[in-house]
Amino acid sequence: MKSVSLACGGGGAEMNALINDVIFKCFDNEILRQSNDGALLDFDSKKLVFTTDSFVANPIFFAGGDIGKIAACGSINDIAMMGAKPLYLSCALIIEEGFELANLERILCSLASVAKDAGLCVVCGDTKVVPKGACDGIFINTSGVGSLLDESLPASIKRLKSANPEKKIKILLSGDIGRHGAALLASRHGLQSLLSSDCAALNTVVESLYDAGIRPLAMRDATRGGLSAVLHEWARVRGGIEVCEEKVAVSAEVMGVCELLGFEAYELANEGTFVLAVSEDESQNALKVLKEFNLAANIIGEFCADFKGVRLKNIYGSKRFLDEPKGELLPRIC
Amino acid sequence: MKSVSLACGGGGAEMNALINDVIFKCFDNEILRQSNDGALLDFDSKKLVFTTDSFVANPIFFAGGDIGKIAACGSINDIAMMGAKPLYLSCALIIEEGFELANLERILCSLASVAKDAGLCVVCGDTKVVPKGACDGIFINTSGVGSLLDESLPASIKRLKSANPEKKIKILLSGDIGRHGAALLASRHGLQSLLSSDCAALNTVVESLYDAGIRPLAMRDATRGGLSAVLHEWARVRGGIEVCEEKVAVSAEVMGVCELLGFEAYELANEGTFVLAVSEDESQNALKVLKEFNLAANIIGEFCADFKGVRLKNIYGSKRFLDEPKGELLPRIC
Repeated sequence: MKSVSLACGGGGAEMNALINDVIFKCFDNEILRQSNDGALLDFDSKKLVFTTDSFVANPIFFAGGDIGKIAACGSINDIAMMGAKPLYLSCALIIEEGFELANLERILCSLASVAKDAGLCVVCGDTKVVPKGACDGIFINTSGVGSLLDESLPASIKRLKSANPEKKIKILLSGDIGRHGAALLASRHGLQSLLSSDCAALNTVVESLYDAGIRPLAMRDATRGGLSAVLHEWARVRGGIEVCEEKVAVSAEVMGVCELLGFEAYELANEGTFVLAVSEDESQNALKVLKEFNLAANIIGEFCADFKGVRLKNIYGSKRFLDEPKGELLPRIC
Repeated sequence: MKSVSLACGGGGAEMNALINDVIFKCFDNEILRQSNDGALLDFDSKKLVFTTDSFVANPIFFAGGDIGKIAACGSINDIAMMGAKPLYLSCALIIEEGFELANLERILCSLASVAKDAGLCVVCGDTKVVPKGACDGIFINTSGVGSLLDESLPASIKRLKSANPEKKIKILLSGDIGRHGAALLASRHGLQSLLSSDCAALNTVVESLYDAGIRPLAMRDATRGGLSAVLHEWARVRGGIEVCEEKVAVSAEVMGVCELLGFEAYELANEGTFVLAVSEDESQNALKVLKEFNLAANIIGEFCADFKGVRLKNIYGSKRFLDEPKGELLPRIC
């Protein structure tokens, strides 16, 4: 590889290669290599969660949201996925000369409203304007800071990796998949559809899980690369994962877009749907909490020691392996 | 104004209008309105400094630095300017499809090396790749987290505003001005020159000031809009500022570029030069510390109660008012 390809931003194998071979090499340190959604840091005597995300979504307005809403949800969710409460957000804008002020206001108010509903606000920012043609419309970066809901038990790849190998670990999914990716696809292809992005802040459902005494080993919002990318990442960390296909909810509208355009729902991005690894004894309680927020939530599978990769099992008992997402068919999904 | 103009990113009057009339309106909160380089936040029982900056510099490599170096210095300096020690950095990349991997590595290593020298590291990140034409090369966002060097006395606009009106406040400058802007100008116009950007991390000099017992009322690195933008911002907060022109160091090379291309050195961006507001009794000590780092440092002026705006006085005693930077002659300086 001599140059960066679109696939390097797709959330799949090529992105992992870029991150591991180039970025981690330059920024080499233990915290980064833990590969969580956010960094878990020492600050004074407390743990601090710190995260960053840039957003280049296109179109900037779509059914169920806009780039401002994703920008707020993205960093809020990255913090929530560590088992933490988001406290503060930053917002840095790169705007193309000539961008309509009315659209800018609409986007920023959307970002601010998500932040407000999640109980936090934008405390610092930056504004750059570039000449026409130097960026396409608007790009937004949000970074966020939060504190752990349970200092002794953050949700993390490390905890998932080191959990007792004798204990069964269940995999839960908080809702139906693929709505964000399918909504953007539909809007790009001018398809009439009832689809709407699942874009939403996940801090409230995560706090409810912790309030109910559940301590997920790991959590991940299934953004770029979709459910498939999360399952493959976890399978690399802890061996095989078996998923019951019929437990994974996919709406008829998402199915329709997938069939029409040749996509796999497992690979479509979500912006308000997450995957949880929970010990078996907590799994029924966790499902009960998830279902209070979305009836489509389910226990979709479990970790297995006897094979590697991600295996799908259907109701007839037949099994197939799910490929890791590769390439980039959907650039600028977030 | 119906759309965003290039001038809205220039660090002058138009940018202030965009920030005050649009961005602050959407994100309305007290912390943001304090208009510091970073936000001063409560975290547990400690104060936490949080800052963000996006970088769109063009060219990406220039005499004295590259976009990676500015990206690291930018956030480190924003934290240092609050009287704080930078602790952690994030790095979010937006890369154009086809960007050369060798350039990416060079930029990231440059960023990492500045961070390392400043005693911190990049702990979280994000990578987005956009199709050819959707962004020009590479844009980098860094956000940063730090802790105050003196919890009771942060450097801030608020402290500058509320300082005893009877006490004289001196204005110091840490070095000669305009080198970053002039170096980028020279390279864009293909001028042969000895110019090199002043791009540098300022955390060490700030820590030395605090170690020497100095507690600046406010500090600001003179980036977009240059020295002029900082002086005007402070004059709005606390009345008039008088500057002795001959105390402001400008190198012959910067002078040359300014004369050739019709720029004002006061308005050219710096990336490693900062302005300090210090009470008169601390000013000589502060100067001594600054001179250990750069002999061009000087006490350049003071706040005056009897006029508004920024007034320049030359050695012959004649006085003229310095205009606030307006328009945008130098897009993508950082």
